[in-house]
Amino acid sequence: MIIQLKKDIQQNQRLDLEQGLNQLNIEFYPVITQMGTYFICTPIQEFDIRKIGYFKGISDVHRVTGNHKMVSSKWKLDRTIIDCGDGVLIGDNNLAMMAGPCSIESEEQINDTVESLLKNGVRIMRGGVYKPRTSPYSFRGLGMEGLKMFYQACNKNGIKIITEVMESAQIEEMMPYVDIFQVGARNAQNFNLLEALGEIDKPVLLKRGISGTIDELLYSAEYVFKSGNEKLILCERGIRTFESAYRNTLDLNAVPILKEKSHLPVVVDPSHGIGIRKHVIQMALASAAVGADGLLIETHKTPEKAATDGQQTLSFKEFDELMLKLKKLKEIF
Amino acid sequence: MIIQLKKDIQQNQRLDLEQGLNQLNIEFYPVITQMGTYFICTPIQEFDIRKIGYFKGISDVHRVTGNHKMVSSKWKLDRTIIDCGDGVLIGDNNLAMMAGPCSIESEEQINDTVESLLKNGVRIMRGGVYKPRTSPYSFRGLGMEGLKMFYQACNKNGIKIITEVMESAQIEEMMPYVDIFQVGARNAQNFNLLEALGEIDKPVLLKRGISGTIDELLYSAEYVFKSGNEKLILCERGIRTFESAYRNTLDLNAVPILKEKSHLPVVVDPSHGIGIRKHVIQMALASAAVGADGLLIETHKTPEKAATDGQQTLSFKEFDELMLKLKKLKEIF
Amino acid sequence: MIIQLKKDIQQNQRLDLEQGLNQLNIEFYPVITQMGTYFICTPIQEFDIRKIGYFKGISDVHRVTGNHKMVSSKWKLDRTIIDCGDGVLIGDNNLAMMAGPCSIESEEQINDTVESLLKNGVRIMRGGVYKPRTSPYSFRGLGMEGLKMFYQACNKNGIKIITEVMESAQIEEMMPYVDIFQVGARNAQNFNLLEALGEIDKPVLLKRGISGTIDELLYSAEYVFKSGNEKLILCERGIRTFESAYRNTLDLNAVPILKEKSHLPVVVDPSHGIGIRKHVIQMALASAAVGADGLLIETHKTPEKAATDGQQTLSFKEFDELMLKLKKLKEIF
Amino acid sequence: MIIQLKKDIQQNQRLDLEQGLNQLNIEFYPVITQMGTYFICTPIQEFDIRKIGYFKGISDVHRVTGNHKMVSSKWKLDRTIIDCGDGVLIGDNNLAMMAGPCSIESEEQINDTVESLLKNGVRIMRGGVYKPRTSPYSFRGLGMEGLKMFYQACNKNGIKIITEVMESAQIEEMMPYVDIFQVGARNAQNFNLLEALGEIDKPVLLKRGISGTIDELLYSAEYVFKSGNEKLILCERGIRTFESAYRNTLDLNAVPILKEKSHLPVVVDPSHGIGIRKHVIQMALASAAVGADGLLIETHKTPEKAATDGQQTLSFKEFDELMLKLKKLKEIF
Repeated sequence: MIIQLKKDIQQNQRLDLEQGLNQLNIEFYPVITQMGTYFICTPIQEFDIRKIGYFKGISDVHRVTGNHKMVSSKWKLDRTIIDCGDGVLIGDNNLAMMAGPCSIESEEQINDTVESLLKNGVRIMRGGVYKPRTSPYSFRGLGMEGLKMFYQACNKNGIKIITEVMESAQIEEMMPYVDIFQVGARNAQNFNLLEALGEIDKPVLLKRGISGTIDELLYSAEYVFKSGNEKLILCERGIRTFESAYRNTLDLNAVPILKEKSHLPVVVDPSHGIGIRKHVIQMALASAAVGADGLLIETHKTPEKAATDGQQTLSFKEFDELMLKLKKLKEIF
Repeated sequence: MIIQLKKDIQQNQRLDLEQGLNQLNIEFYPVITQMGTYFICTPIQEFDIRKIGYFKGISDVHRVTGNHKMVSSKWKLDRTIIDCGDGVLIGDNNLAMMAGPCSIESEEQINDTVESLLKNGVRIMRGGVYKPRTSPYSFRGLGMEGLKMFYQACNKNGIKIITEVMESAQIEEMMPYVDIFQVGARNAQNFNLLEALGEIDKPVLLKRGISGTIDELLYSAEYVFKSGNEKLILCERGIRTFESAYRNTLDLNAVPILKEKSHLPVVVDPSHGIGIRKHVIQMALASAAVGADGLLIETHKTPEKAATDGQQTLSFKEFDELMLKLKKLKEIF
Repeated sequence: MIIQLKKDIQQNQRLDLEQGLNQLNIEFYPVITQMGTYFICTPIQEFDIRKIGYFKGISDVHRVTGNHKMVSSKWKLDRTIIDCGDGVLIGDNNLAMMAGPCSIESEEQINDTVESLLKNGVRIMRGGVYKPRTSPYSFRGLGMEGLKMFYQACNKNGIKIITEVMESAQIEEMMPYVDIFQVGARNAQNFNLLEALGEIDKPVLLKRGISGTIDELLYSAEYVFKSGNEKLILCERGIRTFESAYRNTLDLNAVPILKEKSHLPVVVDPSHGIGIRKHVIQMALASAAVGADGLLIETHKTPEKAATDGQQTLSFKEFDELMLKLKKLKEIF
Repeated sequence: MIIQLKKDIQQNQRLDLEQGLNQLNIEFYPVITQMGTYFICTPIQEFDIRKIGYFKGISDVHRVTGNHKMVSSKWKLDRTIIDCGDGVLIGDNNLAMMAGPCSIESEEQINDTVESLLKNGVRIMRGGVYKPRTSPYSFRGLGMEGLKMFYQACNKNGIKIITEVMESAQIEEMMPYVDIFQVGARNAQNFNLLEALGEIDKPVLLKRGISGTIDELLYSAEYVFKSGNEKLILCERGIRTFESAYRNTLDLNAVPILKEKSHLPVVVDPSHGIGIRKHVIQMALASAAVGADGLLIETHKTPEKAATDGQQTLSFKEFDELMLKLKKLKEIF
């Protein structure tokens, strides 16, 4: 059960409610987000929901069966739209495009990418400055220096930035330069990081774990929401299976299921989802056709020279081709 | 290496070629299909391919590296189109639709389905009469009696039939009533069945194994082809993963990969691929967008009363809706 | 519910029972095996079990909840012991060893293997004459000729034979020369083959499917049992996972679970389970320690020259070493 | 290539070596651990290894092909033994037992467990105070307060403590009370945490990721080692597969493979590996038989009342039984 408090609830009304819940022997967790205040209740026994409705200062009371509470579509019928500022939205009826290199490499690279995005009317640029790499001997990103460079080039062009954060300690420093914090697949159940991201007021994109279930992804989102941040985006990026013909197995079943179970926007990363450059466009089209709210696409002026992930990165020309096809697709759905 | 013989090769030319290969110490497998005669060679050492080119009666010599030979796109650049008769094609630029119930139940059911297909211009009906069931206590199909009923209703309406065959011994009896033989996921590596299907002149649709790799699916097709039947269709139907939120995990990565590696048409079964009725339409659209050559869709007048698989079966009305959306999609690709 | 009939039930008693069940509206499947006659009932509603007990000619009535009936440990508390003849047992308290080459290659090879087995007191030899191979271009076994050779060498030395059968049509021909029919992982859900094996009176060893669940393995056994053959052995042989460091992932969890759920003996194939020769001994010891009723081990005089599976085959010397260690292990458990 | 420096290498010798490597155009990473100083070199081209041997102050030069360097068995032939202090060793020829509850709950619980351990001669107690939980609404451990309580009861009894750390920021505070830091399966690729643990001088036990490959586990160990901490233990705890009959699929293949590839000790957690109390003893025996260097076992006075993981926790009596059986097993291997 979720009790949504009125924005103007008075202190004594809130105390009354808390006492009432205690008397009814109902455990509750207060959740305060950018959007509102909620009490999440996990009553052990069935009881008459009207007993709660009597209290003053309550905006609404929702029954939510199932394990997930705040992220569930059972209480919030309207789909959540994430406002990244300056009119950049994720989850409205447009397909939000987030494109750019796997790793930020240089100012020139950023400027080239920005140009490609502007040409296609894309408002969000992706690019990693902290790179989680399986091997400690691989290139691991330019760090804060790279992020500042990234920010400067994008900010003056009205482009929003999505980039990965790897631990709680990085959040504060990154904060001024980031528009959307991305949690990578390897950190999908790094609960401390999730809770720390719950305490800030910036959108967070959660990638599904490498072999994460739908259920686990929703629980990870619940961690962030419960800690106070409602601005959440879920991302399917391919799962690990027995098949070795591609890097990951893009699981597009996840899109309609996540949209059924949750009110949060769902985006897809087809670049990681198949990991093979020449097939990314087709997988991106399928992702759009299945109802994704946005796409994360790796692009680079010269993919074969990219510091990381070149094998799955589109050239700018290929990206233009994708955008054209997506435009046609959007016209019919 | 594949040596394609001329249709009018003379007996002495063929003997010369065989002797020549023996002298060059090249092992070869003769393959005779409906379309032509081939020698598949697996030479142990590199040698000058022109030494083969000298022989008379040869139409072409193709180098084919990699494990798969006859099904590989390396020797046959044109994509294979399967002719099911009466102008019903699979693998041309149209999306071949195969729809109908999981199990054939009654004459009335078949007639209802035929009507739904005709209304939508669909030319192939699916329906099982031999049902592979995990439990021996489940309904296992109407058998030959059902197939004959199925055939009568379809034949007079110009509808082609695709149905599953479960063992070699059934082929002969089923032969007059079947237009496309389907090999189910559980029999994907039933090599005896595959070879027996190689000896007939009817199209065969191979479903990917429950946890079958891309490589294994191509090898299974190679079994049929090598035994003499080129009329092959590959089918992605979802794989088994750790995820339990859906029946199977539809692997749309498989479509572009199979089309890259093989010249055979590739179709998708989104009904089994997700296993949840309300999401089948979206998965079907994604399958079309990713480039599938056809779709297998489970439909029923009253899905909730279907003998099997009702939970993933579209009603006729939902099927109409799907066909409308697919029509729009086809216009742009 | 399983109704076990008395061996000497009279025809009129049986008719009474059948009529009684019909009147009670209880669907039932009669199962006649080498050991007895059973009615498997799947009543739709709860009813008073004593109503059945009244009938004459009944030996016992067992409530069996859950999906599996005849193979379930819920009705048969004593563990099943498979008698392969001449005192060769599987499922008693000894570890039944089945060793030999992947493929039968020659008379010399068989004789060498028999010698190695006799030396170690092993009574069952494994060896394939029909080999299911992913590629149609691989060696596929010596067929019936090889089997006859296999039989002659073993029979005169009191060694029992286990070998794989690939389709129903082979059973009759193979019958005189085989002591245990093996169903391979790729045929684990070849239901026609399973039913055909249910109609013979020889033990059947069922390998778990390549990605077969515990539940599916038990259902496959149920197919055989329901068709009339109780002489069943279950075999864990490794499953397909994401891990590519070994051929398969040996799942020893399966052993205690299968022994809990079923009364059938459970054996393990560590050779396929890890697929790496130098680690087979350790995996075999683990299999024995976890409670397996027997082991299938690939052995060869010169593994590096074996026609198939040499990379996972023990030399005779390594097999001697394994037998010594197993002997010690048996002393303490 | 790994260059092992002499403990008493002089500053100018080291400078000479560094210059020499630069001149040879060989990139190198200096690694300073508790045990020694190493230069890890990743030369792009083959070169004469003797050119390195000329330099003074070098103890040894090892060629290490393959991706993993410091954790590889290719340069360190002796197996690593972890000294936890007071003669408590992991990786010598004894089976190191680590037992105790999933979660620390109370002083009484700790004392009860200590008593059970002492009785069985077990020197390491496990117990979580920071619990990574899928759901934010689950019990998440007693935190530092619990850890201090845990330490007091164990320290006075000569029992060492292993407990999970969830993020870098916790390390400093936990440091005085922990003997072995455990990295959980969900943090197996939390590279920031791994590097932070590389900077301390306490043993670290790394659990394999929920669907982590052997390769990834070794790379994660490489992260810790490269950051300066050689005291590493690898732990197999079951992987995620399609099988739902148990919580995880214990992958005992991992034990011989990890011991082949790495010089680090390998322990097994059969409690999580199967997740079913009544089968834990058998899986523990299999783990010992396969060659594990130690076992992590969940125990509790009253498993059915445990705050977490009760379904897979042994009672003290069951633990006694396991210890007896393990003792017998150790006598023969």
